[in-house]
Amino acid sequence: MKWSLRIDRGYNMLINGIEYKSVWWEDGSVCLIDQNLLPFAFQVVKLNDFPQVIKAIRDMTVRGAPAIGAAGAFAMALAVIAAPDDKFRSSIRLAHDQIIAARPTAIDLNNGVSYVYENALRFIPDNGHCRQVAVLAATEFVDRSEHDCRILGAIGEPLIPDGARILTHCNAGALATVDWGTALAVIRVAHRKGKRLFVYVSETRPRLQGARLTAFELQQEGIEHAIITDSAAGYYFWKNEIDLMITGADRICLNGDIANKIGTYDKAVLAKEHKIPFYVAAPQTTFDLACMNGKHIPIEYRSPEEITRFGDCQLSNPDSPAFNPAFDITPARLITAFITSKGIFKPKEAAHLIHKAIEN
Amino acid sequence: MKWSLRIDRGYNMLINGIEYKSVWWEDGSVCLIDQNLLPFAFQVVKLNDFPQVIKAIRDMTVRGAPAIGAAGAFAMALAVIAAPDDKFRSSIRLAHDQIIAARPTAIDLNNGVSYVYENALRFIPDNGHCRQVAVLAATEFVDRSEHDCRILGAIGEPLIPDGARILTHCNAGALATVDWGTALAVIRVAHRKGKRLFVYVSETRPRLQGARLTAFELQQEGIEHAIITDSAAGYYFWKNEIDLMITGADRICLNGDIANKIGTYDKAVLAKEHKIPFYVAAPQTTFDLACMNGKHIPIEYRSPEEITRFGDCQLSNPDSPAFNPAFDITPARLITAFITSKGIFKPKEAAHLIHKAIEN
Repeated sequence: MKWSLRIDRGYNMLINGIEYKSVWWEDGSVCLIDQNLLPFAFQVVKLNDFPQVIKAIRDMTVRGAPAIGAAGAFAMALAVIAAPDDKFRSSIRLAHDQIIAARPTAIDLNNGVSYVYENALRFIPDNGHCRQVAVLAATEFVDRSEHDCRILGAIGEPLIPDGARILTHCNAGALATVDWGTALAVIRVAHRKGKRLFVYVSETRPRLQGARLTAFELQQEGIEHAIITDSAAGYYFWKNEIDLMITGADRICLNGDIANKIGTYDKAVLAKEHKIPFYVAAPQTTFDLACMNGKHIPIEYRSPEEITRFGDCQLSNPDSPAFNPAFDITPARLITAFITSKGIFKPKEAAHLIHKAIEN
Repeated sequence: MKWSLRIDRGYNMLINGIEYKSVWWEDGSVCLIDQNLLPFAFQVVKLNDFPQVIKAIRDMTVRGAPAIGAAGAFAMALAVIAAPDDKFRSSIRLAHDQIIAARPTAIDLNNGVSYVYENALRFIPDNGHCRQVAVLAATEFVDRSEHDCRILGAIGEPLIPDGARILTHCNAGALATVDWGTALAVIRVAHRKGKRLFVYVSETRPRLQGARLTAFELQQEGIEHAIITDSAAGYYFWKNEIDLMITGADRICLNGDIANKIGTYDKAVLAKEHKIPFYVAAPQTTFDLACMNGKHIPIEYRSPEEITRFGDCQLSNPDSPAFNPAFDITPARLITAFITSKGIFKPKEAAHLIHKAIEN
């Protein structure tokens, strides 16, 4: 786990006092912290071929838009390494399509896979060089994503007042990214600067990323917080006990609309009703230059069993169907600002500034 | 179970084809359908003294504002029956206070217990007569609550268009009342009139009354529906797939503010944002003539373990606290109309019409 231990830098995700990334490359394999087991067990999974990574993305062993972007980039590198010389081009094309299809909503996956694929493609027919480039490109993509999160934390920190009571949703922490987090990077930096904070963590049904992962990260960091049901956000807005809301995103469109975990839209409407700022923090990998607005974002529907069952237990009426959209769309008009590594953008500036940011 | 079998009337709650009430009086005992076991097991609980009923209200063996009002009225009758002659007045006063304290938010409990208590009190020192009156008063209160629900279903039905896609929250069905339901009474009548309906059932964390009980009642009735997470309501509003929202209430104030299951406020704000009507259906037992507005309603905080655990399973980060408010307040301005047995009221008419309704 040599890539994960960087205790000299003193600022990364801490798990029981040891620094980790959520995704890293090690000896020709992709390593992931198993996020389905956390916080009840800590286990690193080592994956040696891209179909294993696809499975890990699908079953949410790794989740969070920037983290699956990183896993996808490394998966693409594994696919390029393993592609047979006699059908190299068609193999890597097929792998590209299969990895991207693992989950449809977060654009980071597409961005990561395509970045590696396109860089590798440039050196055909020198397949050996393609393979080296694929690993380099994946590493570059992942490092840039991590770098973005580190920077946006520092950029967003002044938006958090001392004493702030913050609402977040799902997990936009180090686990959801390569490291640092998006929303949690901002919160982490504010905390480390000595600001007193309280975070309302909405549990995030059906898979409880808030209750399991965000609560875990905040506890590891020593940030005061409490878990609430997804339905309780309105009550705390109504009591004037939320000063700001901050989340990550799974995709940011040119017009500033976003896709994020189901329930983000509900809370964004509440924030607007109560005139409370709503910030969206994201690395460059989450921007989609090809997507004009939120109506064009494909929404993933996951298995109804995520809602109706927990482990071996039936939770709901056995003969009733369930619908399980995993994401929703929040229109730009409900977003106060984007916090990115290139600065803080108003949603209206998104198209221009996103283009500029990506070009740099 | 002779009180529960009334197959000749053909319109009550059906459980596997047999008609039931959720609460009834039988041979000097209070009978309840155990709502913690449903829909996985069907069991009738027979309680012989008022402390047992208090326990059943507290642990939600019986829940739903009108249903706990009915259980409370019968519990008060049990207390009057059991009160020793030598300290009759003080015994029934103590029981009155203890039963009301079982759960603080739903006013039906207070209304039911006080109705029985005050009627019994009138005949002191003829304690024998007090005991007879207590049973009669409880039965009258419960029958009137059931009657209200039956009538309001018919009164509200014209508000439901053919083909309506309806959002409801928690369980406002026959189980939550004595019979018929409040929100579900309206839906039930519309369905039985041949209207095509689709109901989005929000699961209602932490205790899943939507996923367990509302889904069960709708399935028993043959009404098309799907369970969604509490966070998914906004997505279906955004997709223009909800035509109206209807819930019950735990307390209705003079100014038209209501308390209802946590998450009602969130969805009411969404309904307003999308210009979708939000109806609140309730029997007279849910009106609180002493409460000026929602800020005066006490909100019950239940055990954090309802959020953090499911059966033997830990759901959330073990070292993180959770806050578990069981209800929230929805201001009158977000409510399109009240559906009651006395007619359909605009919230602004609430004070006047509620007074008039109660006086009748």
